[in-house]
Amino acid sequence: MIQCPRGTRDFLPDEMEKRRFYENKLRHTAGTFGFREVETPIFEDAELFILRSGPNVLKELYAFKDKGDREIALRPEMTAPAIRMFVNGMSNDPKPIKIFYFGQCFRYERPQSGRYREFFQFGAELIGSATPETDAEVISMAAAMIRNLGLKEYKIRIGHIGVLRQKIADAGVPKERAAEVLQKLDKKLYDEARPLLEDMNVDSDAIDDIFSLTETVGGVEVLDRVPGEAGDWLRQVVAYLNAMGVVDVEIDLGVVRGLDYYTGMVFEAEAPSLGAEKQICGGGSYTLSELFGGEKVFSTGFAIGFDRILLAMEKEGQVYEPKGIDAYVLSVSDDVRMKAAEIVAGLRAQGISADVDIMGRKMAKALKYASSIRARYAVIVGAKELAEGSVTLRDMTSGEQTLVPVDSLASVIRQ
Amino acid sequence: MIQCPRGTRDFLPDEMEKRRFYENKLRHTAGTFGFREVETPIFEDAELFILRSGPNVLKELYAFKDKGDREIALRPEMTAPAIRMFVNGMSNDPKPIKIFYFGQCFRYERPQSGRYREFFQFGAELIGSATPETDAEVISMAAAMIRNLGLKEYKIRIGHIGVLRQKIADAGVPKERAAEVLQKLDKKLYDEARPLLEDMNVDSDAIDDIFSLTETVGGVEVLDRVPGEAGDWLRQVVAYLNAMGVVDVEIDLGVVRGLDYYTGMVFEAEAPSLGAEKQICGGGSYTLSELFGGEKVFSTGFAIGFDRILLAMEKEGQVYEPKGIDAYVLSVSDDVRMKAAEIVAGLRAQGISADVDIMGRKMAKALKYASSIRARYAVIVGAKELAEGSVTLRDMTSGEQTLVPVDSLASVIRQ
Repeated sequence: MIQCPRGTRDFLPDEMEKRRFYENKLRHTAGTFGFREVETPIFEDAELFILRSGPNVLKELYAFKDKGDREIALRPEMTAPAIRMFVNGMSNDPKPIKIFYFGQCFRYERPQSGRYREFFQFGAELIGSATPETDAEVISMAAAMIRNLGLKEYKIRIGHIGVLRQKIADAGVPKERAAEVLQKLDKKLYDEARPLLEDMNVDSDAIDDIFSLTETVGGVEVLDRVPGEAGDWLRQVVAYLNAMGVVDVEIDLGVVRGLDYYTGMVFEAEAPSLGAEKQICGGGSYTLSELFGGEKVFSTGFAIGFDRILLAMEKEGQVYEPKGIDAYVLSVSDDVRMKAAEIVAGLRAQGISADVDIMGRKMAKALKYASSIRARYAVIVGAKELAEGSVTLRDMTSGEQTLVPVDSLASVIRQ
Repeated sequence: MIQCPRGTRDFLPDEMEKRRFYENKLRHTAGTFGFREVETPIFEDAELFILRSGPNVLKELYAFKDKGDREIALRPEMTAPAIRMFVNGMSNDPKPIKIFYFGQCFRYERPQSGRYREFFQFGAELIGSATPETDAEVISMAAAMIRNLGLKEYKIRIGHIGVLRQKIADAGVPKERAAEVLQKLDKKLYDEARPLLEDMNVDSDAIDDIFSLTETVGGVEVLDRVPGEAGDWLRQVVAYLNAMGVVDVEIDLGVVRGLDYYTGMVFEAEAPSLGAEKQICGGGSYTLSELFGGEKVFSTGFAIGFDRILLAMEKEGQVYEPKGIDAYVLSVSDDVRMKAAEIVAGLRAQGISADVDIMGRKMAKALKYASSIRARYAVIVGAKELAEGSVTLRDMTSGEQTLVPVDSLASVIRQ
């Protein structure tokens, strides 16, 4: 028996209905913030992702040569494609540009809880503006999305990559080796960061200072320890967030994010219920467009791991109830089957979700099926009732049956 | 500058909004027919598609080995994945099972008008029932979809693969060579079909008879020329279709469909405005599940080429007007910017789509931007008006301005 490939999933009707429901909540929230949806191809030139993330990304890429010998790759994320699209086709649009996207991404890695080889991301980019308000706008949308999905326990942590970059530069880390150090600090691998820093002749006090900075967590007051522009910037971001009603954020100067292209504010959201793989959202301000052949343009964006946030909601006990259909039409005898077809078509034309027996089942079996597909009503078409222009409407929950004229069937069901 | 790969497309906001609008019309129509959405992975074991379509499919497949040395392929269509999914996870569900899906498919072929390497298909399968009503149910949904999208000129042609199969068997074509002949007839390549049939010792009159059958087109009366079960079956399909109000169908015994797995009724829809590539929908009844390791189960399904049907609607002059946002909030002076942030957050929380100036623009420039993003209203926040709890609401179409209390802003905008 052929199965779906390892690390991928089929979504059956109940699961799919739930996913679309929450996907549309994200889409709706993005709409209220004035973000507009875009879509990019499932695969891109592999080069695009190497430019964004460095050659190491190849290890996890689904990369292959197409029949024209082009090196292409299934997208592992959607920020690079979105910015490529901006460079190709939107660079002259009035700024700021607010876009979002939702879709499959692919990473060849070991499947584990909440991690798949085909996974779903929601993301947004605000392109062409670099102000504290820009950062607040983006963080507030991420917060609204998490809140609107209904997740109860989450934490949003905001940092500034400039603070740590300045600190390690002041400590004597050469510019070209900064990324190495930041990657260790991103994962809080202090045991590995220390010999690395010692090797660069950073003295022990400075190292302790750097480590302590990455553990600086708390309210806006911790910014008192951060002199200069970065501290002022974050203070303003938090002030705007508070004005917009987003008060549940924390300053965390240990938020590093793994990648080189971030320029200022960085943030993450996590759901503690998920344990080790608790990050559900990450983003920040960056420039990427110049790597893809465009002008340098400041952007702020984020991505939400859709599978993980759904998992977190599940762990909190959130249950989605599938809707079922409005009506199931069945015939008492064969001579009314054409009439049943006419009735179901009439209901559908009026926007009612309706199904009809197509297997010639007897009433008891047909009602059992109607119940299995969660029909609210059964419409029982019989010759006797039809003679008077009526059908029997059965409430599938209560079992109550009433005679309803065919003409008013739709309006009764709609009530 | 990196571009998107050949034969693929970026969908910018206006285009994307239009596509989602029509996609949701399809989704809504499917819902009224009691079909439920499913989703399968973007890639599958390549074997799945070879089992369905034969080894020739490899020429057009995006197939590659993953890092675990599995031969996988981007899906070229979604019927095989849907039936694989049914075999793996739905085979014990109450029958009939009605599912639909929408998504990207991939074929490595020469890009041309309405044909892309990454293209979008909508499809539906009704699994586990084989009656004329089943076929009518599926055709009527395809018809409703085309109609609900708003396409004006289209033609639905219904045939029965059994008629032609019987005819060529009676003429002496050996069973194992039937597919060869049918493929020629599918494409109306009579010049190539004739020598092939002669080679199988089919006499000239029988060949003429076969060709004439494939050109039998017309109303239900042409079925008089089709004796036996297949004719009776199609007559019933048409009767049910008529009962459901679907009267604009034609019988066309030349509808062959290219593939072996069809078992009975086959149908196609075309949009004449598209010229040579005019097919927008195709389907029929089939069995596939046994090829994938399941029991043999009869199904009827179809797929709609989403890109092509949109192109046909465009050619008919159908225009989609993008919606824009409800309100754009801007500040007259810097001292009210926090208040502007508070106001925009309040509007959004009430479900109004609202944007806010984040670039500190002067009024004239901010209004120009608001107009570029098609805001219905500008909300002008000034210190003087705020002192009285009000803001200025500007109708962006008429230019009319009124003072509105902040408390009632949402309800005024919603009117």
